[in-house]
Amino acid sequence: PSHRGAASPVPRLNSLAYWVVFFLLLWTFSEGGKLLVVPIDGSHWLSMRPVVERLRQKGHEIVVVAPEINLRIGLSVHYTIKTYSVPYTREYVEAEFKKMGYRSFTPQPFLEKFSKLANITTMFFDSCKRLLSNKELIKYLEESKFDAVFMDPFFPCGQIVAEHLSLPSVYLVRGLPCSLDFHATLCPNPPSYIPRFFTRYTDRMTFLQRVGNLIASLSSSLACSFLYSPYDGLIKEFLQQEATVLELFSHTSIWLMKYDFVFEYPRPLMPNMVLIGGISCTQEKALSQEFEAIVNASGEHGIVVFSLGSMVSEIPMKKATEIADALGSVPQTVLWRYTGEAPPNLPKNVKLVKWLPQNDLLAHPKTRAFITHGGSHGVYEGICNAVPMVLMPLFGDQMDNAKRVESRGAGLTLNILEMTSKDISTALKAVINDKKYKENIKRLSDLHLDRPIHPLDLAVHWVEFVMRHKGAPHLRPAAHDLNWIQYHSLDVIAFLLAVVLLSLFISLKCCLFCCRRLCCKKGRTKKPTKSKSH
Amino acid sequence: PSHRGAASPVPRLNSLAYWVVFFLLLWTFSEGGKLLVVPIDGSHWLSMRPVVERLRQKGHEIVVVAPEINLRIGLSVHYTIKTYSVPYTREYVEAEFKKMGYRSFTPQPFLEKFSKLANITTMFFDSCKRLLSNKELIKYLEESKFDAVFMDPFFPCGQIVAEHLSLPSVYLVRGLPCSLDFHATLCPNPPSYIPRFFTRYTDRMTFLQRVGNLIASLSSSLACSFLYSPYDGLIKEFLQQEATVLELFSHTSIWLMKYDFVFEYPRPLMPNMVLIGGISCTQEKALSQEFEAIVNASGEHGIVVFSLGSMVSEIPMKKATEIADALGSVPQTVLWRYTGEAPPNLPKNVKLVKWLPQNDLLAHPKTRAFITHGGSHGVYEGICNAVPMVLMPLFGDQMDNAKRVESRGAGLTLNILEMTSKDISTALKAVINDKKYKENIKRLSDLHLDRPIHPLDLAVHWVEFVMRHKGAPHLRPAAHDLNWIQYHSLDVIAFLLAVVLLSLFISLKCCLFCCRRLCCKKGRTKKPTKSKSH
Repeated sequence: PSHRGAASPVPRLNSLAYWVVFFLLLWTFSEGGKLLVVPIDGSHWLSMRPVVERLRQKGHEIVVVAPEINLRIGLSVHYTIKTYSVPYTREYVEAEFKKMGYRSFTPQPFLEKFSKLANITTMFFDSCKRLLSNKELIKYLEESKFDAVFMDPFFPCGQIVAEHLSLPSVYLVRGLPCSLDFHATLCPNPPSYIPRFFTRYTDRMTFLQRVGNLIASLSSSLACSFLYSPYDGLIKEFLQQEATVLELFSHTSIWLMKYDFVFEYPRPLMPNMVLIGGISCTQEKALSQEFEAIVNASGEHGIVVFSLGSMVSEIPMKKATEIADALGSVPQTVLWRYTGEAPPNLPKNVKLVKWLPQNDLLAHPKTRAFITHGGSHGVYEGICNAVPMVLMPLFGDQMDNAKRVESRGAGLTLNILEMTSKDISTALKAVINDKKYKENIKRLSDLHLDRPIHPLDLAVHWVEFVMRHKGAPHLRPAAHDLNWIQYHSLDVIAFLLAVVLLSLFISLKCCLFCCRRLCCKKGRTKKPTKSKSH
Repeated sequence: PSHRGAASPVPRLNSLAYWVVFFLLLWTFSEGGKLLVVPIDGSHWLSMRPVVERLRQKGHEIVVVAPEINLRIGLSVHYTIKTYSVPYTREYVEAEFKKMGYRSFTPQPFLEKFSKLANITTMFFDSCKRLLSNKELIKYLEESKFDAVFMDPFFPCGQIVAEHLSLPSVYLVRGLPCSLDFHATLCPNPPSYIPRFFTRYTDRMTFLQRVGNLIASLSSSLACSFLYSPYDGLIKEFLQQEATVLELFSHTSIWLMKYDFVFEYPRPLMPNMVLIGGISCTQEKALSQEFEAIVNASGEHGIVVFSLGSMVSEIPMKKATEIADALGSVPQTVLWRYTGEAPPNLPKNVKLVKWLPQNDLLAHPKTRAFITHGGSHGVYEGICNAVPMVLMPLFGDQMDNAKRVESRGAGLTLNILEMTSKDISTALKAVINDKKYKENIKRLSDLHLDRPIHPLDLAVHWVEFVMRHKGAPHLRPAAHDLNWIQYHSLDVIAFLLAVVLLSLFISLKCCLFCCRRLCCKKGRTKKPTKSKSH
C-alpha cells in the first residue's frame, strides 16, 4: 500500500493544475459579465429561470427587471430584482389568469374569447409603459453598464429597453403570434408545409387545409396589429424613432427557440436561431417521502400524473366531477394537481395535491401516463421521460402542441368543451394499455435525448457569446438590407422579362423591316425590269 | 504523508467506478457499430479522415471503399480498406491532377477549361461504374451488415451503394455544384442575397449583380446535367429504378456542412444540416526540430507560410520566378511548400520544403501571414489561427472562398493570371504591416473558436446518431412529399384567385340582374300606370 500512497502526489499536482486552469478560464471568461433580464410573468418565466440561475453560477451578475405585482418572479439569491410600480393589484392579475383558465372550459364565440384576452395584453402594455416612464429605474439601467439583455419577446418591452441602452439582446421564445419570429429573422416560412399556429394542422395538409393555412398566414397580420400596434406609439415616445415592433425584433442577436424536431415539424431555420427544446427537462431529483410513499403504494399498476399547468389549478365543478368519474375507471393511482374544491365523487385512487414535482414524478418508472393541458413545458417533460400523454388543451399554443403529440402517435387529444367522462376514460385506458403509445413516445424520447450538448448548456453558451462579443453580427443575413421586392428578386425578374420582351420586339421589328425591304426590293426590282423591258 | 496515502483509496474507487461506467456506456453505444465509408480521393479526404479516425477510436468498425488507384486514401490502422480495380493508372491520375493545377496558371477560354475538367469527372464516373459492377465487393458489402454509410457526395457513387444496401447515409460536404445540396434538402436559397458559386459576388449585391446571380442560378442546372446526368443510367442499371441523382441525394439523413458564418454568408438552413466548419483545425502539435529551427531563426520579423494546397505543388517557372522575386521583398522568412524545380532567383529568406505542417506553423505566434490558394481547408486553418491571408485562387470554390475572406477585410486576393511580382509584394506587405487585417482575422477567429462543442465532436455525434437510430427521419421536412406547384402554393393561390374572381363575377351579374329588373320594373310599372290612365 505504501507505494500506492507515494504515487498520489503526481495526480494531485495534475488535478491542482487542472483546477487552476479551470478557474483561470472561468475568471477570464466570466469576470465582469453583467446581464439584464426582462422576463414575462407566468409560465414563460419557468423556462427562463434555469438559464438565469446557471448564468449566475458561472459568475455573471444578473439584474431582473419585473413589475412589482407578479405571480412567479420572486426574490432569489441568483439575481438582483428591480421592480417598478404598476397600475393594477395582485388580486386583479390572479383573477385575470384564473379567468383565462376557467374560460377555456365554457364554450364562447371566438371574438368574445379574443376580446377577453385583451385584458391581459392591456395589462402587459400598461406594465411596459410604467417601466419606460420610471425615470429612476431607467437611470439605474443606463448607469449599470450591462453587456446584454436576455428577454422573453412575447411582449416587446425588453427590446425597447435594449434599444435605449444600445445593448445586444438574446430572446428565449417558444413562438410568437402570427409568425413574427420568422418575419423578424427573415426565415423562410412556406405555408405549404408549415402549419400556422391555431390552425391545428400538421405538416401534411390536404388541399383545403393548405388553402386554410395560406388564409391563416395572410390574416394573422391582423391579429398582430391588434396585439403589437399599441407599442409603436411607445417606441416613438421613448426611443424618439419611427419603428415597428417587427423592426425592433429584427435587431436581436440570438433567438433561443424552444424547438426540437421530435415535437415540432421540420422547417427552415436561420443561423441565429438556436434550438433548445427540452431545456427545462433536467436530471430528476429524488422524490420527497410524501410522493415516494404514494408512488410505492400504487403497486404493479403504477401512477398517472395529472396537471393542467402552473396557471390553471381550478376548473368548473361539472367538469371536475366528470374527470373524477373517469379517473376512477383505471386501476392506476392518479396524482392530480388541483387547488379547487374537491369533486364529491372523488374516487379512492385519486390523490389531490396542491403542487407536484412534475418532472421527477414523470421520470419515475412507475408512471404510466400523463394527463396534461399540453403546454410546451409539460409536453417536453413528457417526451423527455417517455410518458404517453392524454392532452386537454386549453388556450394559446396548446391545441397545436396537442395535435403535434397526437400526430406522432404519442398521445390522445380531448376536446375540453365536449369531452365526456367516457371519452376521458377511453383515452386514458388507451394510452396506458395500447403499447404503441409507449413505443412511440419512447422512440421520440430516445431521439430527443441523443444530443451532443444539453439545451441548457447551449442556451447559456449563446447568452455568454452575445455578452462576450457584444452581439453576433456575423449571423445576421444580408437580406435585412433588402426590401420586399428586392428580396423576392421581383425587380430582377421584371428587368429580365423586359429585356427578353424588348429583344423579341426588336428582332421581330428587324425581321419585319427586312421582309418588307426584301418584298419592296423584289417589287421594285421587278418594276424596273419591267420598265427596262418597256 | 501517511494519512494522505490513506485517503487515496476513495478517489481511486470513485475513478474506477467512473471508468467502469464510462466503458459500459461506450460498450452500450458503440458495440457492434459498423460503418461503411465512401470517400472522394484528393483534398476532400483530408476533412473526412479525422472523423473516421475518431469514430474508430470510439469503438466502431470501419470499412473504407476506395479505388485501387488513388492519391490520398492509404492503408491505415483505423480502418479496413476495400479496393476495386479501375481502368486507369496512378500516373494518369497524378498527371490529371497536376494538369488541373498547372492549367490554372495559363489563361484559357472558359469552355476549354470546362472541357478539360471533364477528364476528371469521367475518371470518377468510370471508377463508380467499376465499383458497382464489382460483384465480389458488392456481395461483401451486402453481407457486412453496416449501420450506415458515411460519404462525400461530390460524386453520388456512395449514395447509390447506400440505396442498394438500404442504409441511411451521412454526407460530409463543402458545397455541391449548382446548389444541388440546397435543392436536395429543399433548403430555401434566395438568389437575392445568396451568391451562387463561381460568381465571386458577396451577399451584398448591386442590381446588376443580382441579375447575374439569378441568371447563374438558372443556368447552373445546365452544368449539373453535364456533371451528373451520366449517373442516371447507372442508377437505372444498378438499382433497377428511375431516379435522378437529386432524388437520391434527398434521401440522406444528415448533411455535415463545412460551414461557419465567420466565413460563409448567413443564409437559411434545414434541420438536417449540421455545421462543422473548421473541423480540421485541431489543437496544434509541437513543431519538428527542423521547422522549429527555421521559425526561431526568423527573428523579430517572423515567418510567412506559403502553400498552394495538397493538390498543387508545381507551377510554371515564369510564375515561380515572379513569386520568388516578390517574396524576396519582405524581411520575413518564407516557408514555401514546393516540389517543382527551384526558381533561379530564389531569395535567401525563402525556404523551399516538400511538405510542411501547415496548421502547426500557422498556430505559431511568429507567423505573420499565410499565402494560400484559398481551399476551404486552408482558409479555416488561417481563420482558426488568426493569420491574415494573401489568396491566389486556382480553381473550383477557391475564387469564392478568396472573395469571402477579402470581403471581411481579413486578406487580399490576387489574380493568378495577371498578378505581377509587384502585386504580390504589395499584397503581402499590406497584410503583414497594415494592422486592420490582423485585427479582422483575430475577430473572426475569436467568433469562430467560441463554440459550445468542437466541430469534430459534432460530426462524430451525428454519424453515430444515424448509426444508432438507423437514420434521422424526424429531421426530414414534409416538403419532400409536395411537388413544385404545391410547395410554392401555386395551386392554392390559383384556387383563391378563381374563387375571388368567380364571386366578383357572380356579384356583378347579380347586381346587373337586379338593376335590370329594377329598371324593367320601373319601365313596366310606368307603362301600366300609363295604360291605366288611358
